[in-house]
Amino acid sequence: MTFSTSKAARKLVDLAKTPFDLTEEGNLTPQRIEKYCATSCGYNLLYGTERVADEVMQSLKDLAVEAHVIDKMNAMQAGALINRIEGFPSENREVLHTATRDFFEHPNQSPAAIAATKLAKKEVDKLEKFIEKIDKEDLFTDLILIGIGGSELGPKANYLGMKYLQKPGRKIFFLGNVDPDDGAAILREVDLKKCLVLVISKSGTTLETLTNESFVKERFIKAGLDPQKHFVAITGEGSPMDDKTKYLESFYIWDWIGGRYSSTSMVGGVLLSFACGFDNYWEFLKGASGMDKVALNPDINQNISLLSALLGVWNRNFLHLPTLAVIPYSQALSRFPAHIQQLDMESNGKHIDKQGKEVDFDTGPIIWGEPGTSAQHSFYQLIHQGTSTIPLEFIGFKTSQYKDDITIQGTTSQEKLLANLFAQAIALATGQKSGNPNKEFKGNRPSHIVLGDQLTAYSLGVLLAFFEHKVAFQGFLWNINSFDQEGVQLGKVLANKIIDRFSSQKQHQEGKPYPLGDAFIKYVK
Amino acid sequence: MTFSTSKAARKLVDLAKTPFDLTEEGNLTPQRIEKYCATSCGYNLLYGTERVADEVMQSLKDLAVEAHVIDKMNAMQAGALINRIEGFPSENREVLHTATRDFFEHPNQSPAAIAATKLAKKEVDKLEKFIEKIDKEDLFTDLILIGIGGSELGPKANYLGMKYLQKPGRKIFFLGNVDPDDGAAILREVDLKKCLVLVISKSGTTLETLTNESFVKERFIKAGLDPQKHFVAITGEGSPMDDKTKYLESFYIWDWIGGRYSSTSMVGGVLLSFACGFDNYWEFLKGASGMDKVALNPDINQNISLLSALLGVWNRNFLHLPTLAVIPYSQALSRFPAHIQQLDMESNGKHIDKQGKEVDFDTGPIIWGEPGTSAQHSFYQLIHQGTSTIPLEFIGFKTSQYKDDITIQGTTSQEKLLANLFAQAIALATGQKSGNPNKEFKGNRPSHIVLGDQLTAYSLGVLLAFFEHKVAFQGFLWNINSFDQEGVQLGKVLANKIIDRFSSQKQHQEGKPYPLGDAFIKYVK
Repeated sequence: MTFSTSKAARKLVDLAKTPFDLTEEGNLTPQRIEKYCATSCGYNLLYGTERVADEVMQSLKDLAVEAHVIDKMNAMQAGALINRIEGFPSENREVLHTATRDFFEHPNQSPAAIAATKLAKKEVDKLEKFIEKIDKEDLFTDLILIGIGGSELGPKANYLGMKYLQKPGRKIFFLGNVDPDDGAAILREVDLKKCLVLVISKSGTTLETLTNESFVKERFIKAGLDPQKHFVAITGEGSPMDDKTKYLESFYIWDWIGGRYSSTSMVGGVLLSFACGFDNYWEFLKGASGMDKVALNPDINQNISLLSALLGVWNRNFLHLPTLAVIPYSQALSRFPAHIQQLDMESNGKHIDKQGKEVDFDTGPIIWGEPGTSAQHSFYQLIHQGTSTIPLEFIGFKTSQYKDDITIQGTTSQEKLLANLFAQAIALATGQKSGNPNKEFKGNRPSHIVLGDQLTAYSLGVLLAFFEHKVAFQGFLWNINSFDQEGVQLGKVLANKIIDRFSSQKQHQEGKPYPLGDAFIKYVK
Repeated sequence: MTFSTSKAARKLVDLAKTPFDLTEEGNLTPQRIEKYCATSCGYNLLYGTERVADEVMQSLKDLAVEAHVIDKMNAMQAGALINRIEGFPSENREVLHTATRDFFEHPNQSPAAIAATKLAKKEVDKLEKFIEKIDKEDLFTDLILIGIGGSELGPKANYLGMKYLQKPGRKIFFLGNVDPDDGAAILREVDLKKCLVLVISKSGTTLETLTNESFVKERFIKAGLDPQKHFVAITGEGSPMDDKTKYLESFYIWDWIGGRYSSTSMVGGVLLSFACGFDNYWEFLKGASGMDKVALNPDINQNISLLSALLGVWNRNFLHLPTLAVIPYSQALSRFPAHIQQLDMESNGKHIDKQGKEVDFDTGPIIWGEPGTSAQHSFYQLIHQGTSTIPLEFIGFKTSQYKDDITIQGTTSQEKLLANLFAQAIALATGQKSGNPNKEFKGNRPSHIVLGDQLTAYSLGVLLAFFEHKVAFQGFLWNINSFDQEGVQLGKVLANKIIDRFSSQKQHQEGKPYPLGDAFIKYVK
C-alpha cells in the first residue's frame, strides 16, 4: 500500500471534490472556530478557517493511522535507522535530534536514545562551563557564527526570536555566503580583539565555511591576534576540524543530527548561550523537549504537529495547492520562515519513496513567507485576489516580548497586530461579493493560526519542535525519507568542476573548453 | 481579443506540448548559451537554460506585438491614465515613477511627463540642499525609517545593495511592523539625540506608520527632545502629514507614484542620500533612468525587461509553473527578493482584466527567494528533486563590491560564487541519470541568469528598473491593471472592526459578539 492507494486517501480524493465552503453564509461561525481548535504545550492551533469538515478530519485521522505515523515517530525518537532508502546505498543513520534536548521529564528509555542523550548532555555541560568561564574572563563581546544552511538559518532564526533576552553589549554576526562581500561587510563592523568565532560544519569540509574561516582567520593574523584564542569548532567528532591545536574549544555533533534539525544541539547552543545566557538556552531546550513528548500522542487534538501535517497534506495532495506561506505576526520571528523553508523543503522535496520507487503524488510544498503585518502591505494582494490559491500557516502571540507598547485610540499595538491577524484569516476565508469586480474577493483561501501566549525561550523551543515534527509526520505519511539531501550533490560536483577550470585557466592561461560551463565562463573576464 | 485568444497564445499552447528538452544529450551546448543572450545597460540576460527554442521565441515576440506592449510602455512613460479599470470606479491615475528619475539623456517630451519630472526634480534639489545642510551641521548619525510595504521594502533592499558605500559612523534602522517589539528593539539600539526619523506615508493615514511614529515620538519627548527637530515627513502634498509645524522638513510624492514603484522617489532618496551620499543616490537614479529608455526598445535582444517578462509568461501560462524563485548570488541583495516579491505580486496578483472581466488564464506568479550560495544549502533540494518544477531568475555579478577577497587553491571567493551560480543553472537544466533513484535528477528545471559586472549604485538602479518594467510588461501582456491594490482593502476593513471591538470591550467591559472575530478574540485575554 502506498500513500495514494490507501483507503483513507481514496476517500479524501472523493471528499476533495466538494471541500467545505467557507464563503457560504453561516458556514464560518464562532462555534466552528471554537470547535476546530487543538492545544499542545501552551499553543492553540485554530483551524476553523481551513476547508475541512468532520468527515475530512476523520479521514485524515485514518490516513495517519494507516501510515502508522505515531509508531514511526516513536521509532525515530528511539533511534531506529530511519534515514535510509531500502535496497540502495544511502546514509543509513539514526535520526536523533530529540536526544539533543531529552534532559527533562520522561526521557526516552531506548538504549540508542539513552546513549545519544548522554553524549549530547556531555556537550551541554561542557558548554555551561565554557560560557561561565568566558563570561568571568570578560574577553568577548562580539561573536561571528561561520556556517551555512542548517548551521546558519536555524541558529539565526532562534537567536532573533530570543534577542530580547540578549546580554547588554553583545553583538552577533552571521557569515554564511561564499560571496566575499558577506565577510567583508562583517569585518568592517566587528571588534576582532573581543570577538569569538564559531566555525560550524559537521563534516568539517563545507566549501563556504572553510573559505570564510580562512578569510576571517587571515584578518586575525594580520591584526596580530592568535586565532586559536578566538576560534571555536562545532563539528563531528574526528572530522578534519576536530583539532585542539587550532581551536580554543571544540563542541561535537554526530551523524544522527541532520543540519536542518541541529539548532538545539551545539550548532545553535553555543551562540544562544553566549548571546542570551546558558539559562535561556536551557529553557529553549525544555520547550523543544516538551513538544517531542507531545508528538507521540495519537490524539490530533493534543498533537498539533500531527494536526498541522495532516492539514498540509489535505491542501497539498487533495486540494492540489503547491505552496504554503508561513506568516508569523511577530517581528522577532522575521527569519523563522527562512528556517522553516529549509527544514521543510530540504526534508520533503523528494521524488522517491523509502523503497526507492518514484512517487505518484506530490511531496513537500514550496514554503515561503515574511512577517505580518508588513506582509499585508506586500504580497497579500495576490493572496486575496490572484489566480493562485495559497494556504497560510499563521503564527501569533497574545502578548509582546518587551512589553513596551503604546495605546492609541483605546488599543495597544499588540492588539492591532492581533486584530490584523484574525481579520486576515476571516477575510481570506469568507471573501466578499461586490458589484465592482475589482472589489470582489473569492474567499476559500485556507489558513490556520498557531497561537501562543508570548514568544519566550521556552515557547520558541516548542515552536521549533512543532515544525520539526510536522515535517517528519508529512514524511511518514508520504513514506519518503525526510532526512537525507542527495539533491544538493549534483550542483556541488559541477561547481567544483568549474572552480577547477577557473583555477587551471589561471595557471595555464588556456585549457580545453569545459563542455557546459565554458559559454558561461567566457562572460567572466 | 484577450490574452488567451490571441493568435500567438494559441500557437504557444501548441508549442508547449513539446517544450525544448534540456536533458537530451547535445541539446544544451556552449553555442546555445551564447546564442540565447540579450544585453541592456551593462547586463546580460542568459536564457539558454530556459525551455525555449527559436519557434517559441518567435511566438513570444508575436505575443508582445499583438499586445502592443511597447506602445503601452510609451503611454505609461508619457503619463497616460493607465491605472484604471474601464467602466468601474477605479484609481484613474497616471503611472509616472519613471518621471522621478528622468533627469538625464533624452527626457520624455510629453507634457504630463515634463510636468511630473519638474515636480520630482524640485524635491531632488531640495534633498541635495537638505543633505548638504545636515552633513555640515553634523547633527545626525542615526536614522530610523518608519514606513511599511513599498515605503520600507524597496528602500531597505536598495540601501543594503549600496551599503558598501555607506558613510562611516552612520546607522540605519527600519521600523515597519505594527508589532510593538519591532519598535522596542530599535529603541534599545538607537541614539535618539543624534537620530533623524523619516516618516513615510503617501496618504498620511497608514495605521502602522502613524502608530509607530507616535511610539517613537513619545520616546523623544520623554528624553526631553523636540521631535520637530528630528522628524522628516515624506508624504503626498496636502496629506494630513504635510504639516511644517510638526516636521523638520517635508518631501513630497504624488498619486502618480505607486508605493511599490516609489523607491527612486523621495521614499528611497532621503535614506540613500543620508546613508551613502547624494552623489550615489544620483548615480542610482541615472541607472534606473537608463533602463527606462531601454524599456522602449521593441527588440527583445536589447530589452531584457521585455525578454524576462516573456520568458515568465512562457513558464507561467504555457508550462503552467505557478511560482518563480528570484535568487541573487550576491549577499548585498539579500532583501532584494522581498522587494521584488511585493513589486510583482501586488502588481500582478489580479483576477480581472482592464475591462473588469474575470480572466481565464493565470496572472502573476508567486515570487520568493533567498541569496545563493546560502540557498543551495537550504531549499535547493526540492528544486532539484522535488515533485514541483520551479523556474528561477538568477542574478550575479562578475566582481565583488568591497574587492576584499581571498584566494584559496587558486580561486577567489567571487569565482567560487560564480562557479556555483553557473553550475546550478546547468545542473537544473540537464539533470543526471543514475542507477540509484536517489541520485537521479530529472532536469528540465528552467532558469536564466541576469549577469552584471559589479553591483554599484548605477547598476542597482538598472536592476531595479529592470524588474519594474518586467512586471509592467507582464501586466500589459495580460491586459490587467498592475498599478492598483484593491485586494488589500477587505482585510483592512475587518481589522479595523476588530480593533474597534477591542477598544469598546475595554471601554464597556461588554459588547455584542462580533459575528466572526469573537471566537478568535476570546483567545486573547
